[in-house]
Amino acid sequence: MLPKLQIALDNTDLESALKSVAPVGEVVDVIEVGTILYVAEGSEAVRKLRELYPDKIILADIKAADAGSLLAKLCFDAGASWMTTICCSDINTMIGALKEGDNYPDEKDIQIELYGDWTFDQAAQWRKAGLSQVVYHRSRDAQAAGKDWSDEDLEKIDKLCKMGFKVTVTGGLKIDTIKLFKDYPIYCFIAGRSIRDAADPKQAALDFKKEISKYWE
Amino acid sequence: MLPKLQIALDNTDLESALKSVAPVGEVVDVIEVGTILYVAEGSEAVRKLRELYPDKIILADIKAADAGSLLAKLCFDAGASWMTTICCSDINTMIGALKEGDNYPDEKDIQIELYGDWTFDQAAQWRKAGLSQVVYHRSRDAQAAGKDWSDEDLEKIDKLCKMGFKVTVTGGLKIDTIKLFKDYPIYCFIAGRSIRDAADPKQAALDFKKEISKYWE
Repeated sequence: MLPKLQIALDNTDLESALKSVAPVGEVVDVIEVGTILYVAEGSEAVRKLRELYPDKIILADIKAADAGSLLAKLCFDAGASWMTTICCSDINTMIGALKEGDNYPDEKDIQIELYGDWTFDQAAQWRKAGLSQVVYHRSRDAQAAGKDWSDEDLEKIDKLCKMGFKVTVTGGLKIDTIKLFKDYPIYCFIAGRSIRDAADPKQAALDFKKEISKYWE
Repeated sequence: MLPKLQIALDNTDLESALKSVAPVGEVVDVIEVGTILYVAEGSEAVRKLRELYPDKIILADIKAADAGSLLAKLCFDAGASWMTTICCSDINTMIGALKEGDNYPDEKDIQIELYGDWTFDQAAQWRKAGLSQVVYHRSRDAQAAGKDWSDEDLEKIDKLCKMGFKVTVTGGLKIDTIKLFKDYPIYCFIAGRSIRDAADPKQAALDFKKEISKYWE
């Protein structure tokens, strides 16, 4: 299956987020209200984007650590399709969020954001509890500290795919990073600044899609 | 030192949060914009509360997992005194957030929210990096699953205090839970629903303060 392309809107206000998404919203598969935009504007950002893009997957990247069902309700009521939880949350938080999605007529889902020292034992519990999406993340701050994608990253991604997870990959992805993942059934690639800050963002998004279609079908 | 009292505003909209805080805002030491309120309303909630309570400590409980300095800037610019990070974030995220605080004339600080399988090795690294506040949390969802405060919780809190952390305790605290912690130099107690949902919230906050003053001075 062709991996999806997700634009991360990590703008610090809604106005600039709407400017960022305008040229690429119809090109990408998933529109992410990033944590930064969420902290700035709250669920209003999701409501506005849902209005503008009724048919797109909209992700609320709030990295819920607690109160899973209540936070999922806030995000889903605003129009989000997916919400993220953080990997170190209690599994009941994840389960609560996942079950909240059953109350909606459209498809809702929960992604687990993998930060820090999560374990494959935990991952096995998540699968067993019905969670199916994980986001494999190279953190912005780890990037800034000079950490690049490694064989260890790829081995972990491979293992998560083999466990049956839909794996999203993110963290300073550029066009020429995509081929690193060609041997794995990646579910979704997230690009942020490499699309938003491109001279021609629409072309950058199309280039990502073209690059993805070289390695998957 | 007398532990502080913090009210957690985990309302799902600003209007109800303002109603919750009105009777107790001047009684408590710290006013928390909880994750739930943050997800609903974004930084506007902090701005409004700062306007109303210029002299109180205001905590932005966003549980930052990444982009520490940028998120801290958003929260601090809005008027927050403290911001939370999640324990499984990269240490560079915490350091970035902490350093951002140096750019402000008033005192800013970062709290690390302890969820899931954090370790004392990590905690030692946080101290070494200059982080001084942790929040010891019994998660809402763990509570709902019937988990109570245990000797293991108290031992961990003791150890964190001895490492030099200012330890905040939270998770379904009631008046008669306070004495459980009497042997430790707790920095702050967070109460949410047990104040907000009380018949007389101001009296409930005063009762918490009175109970605290029985065991600490």
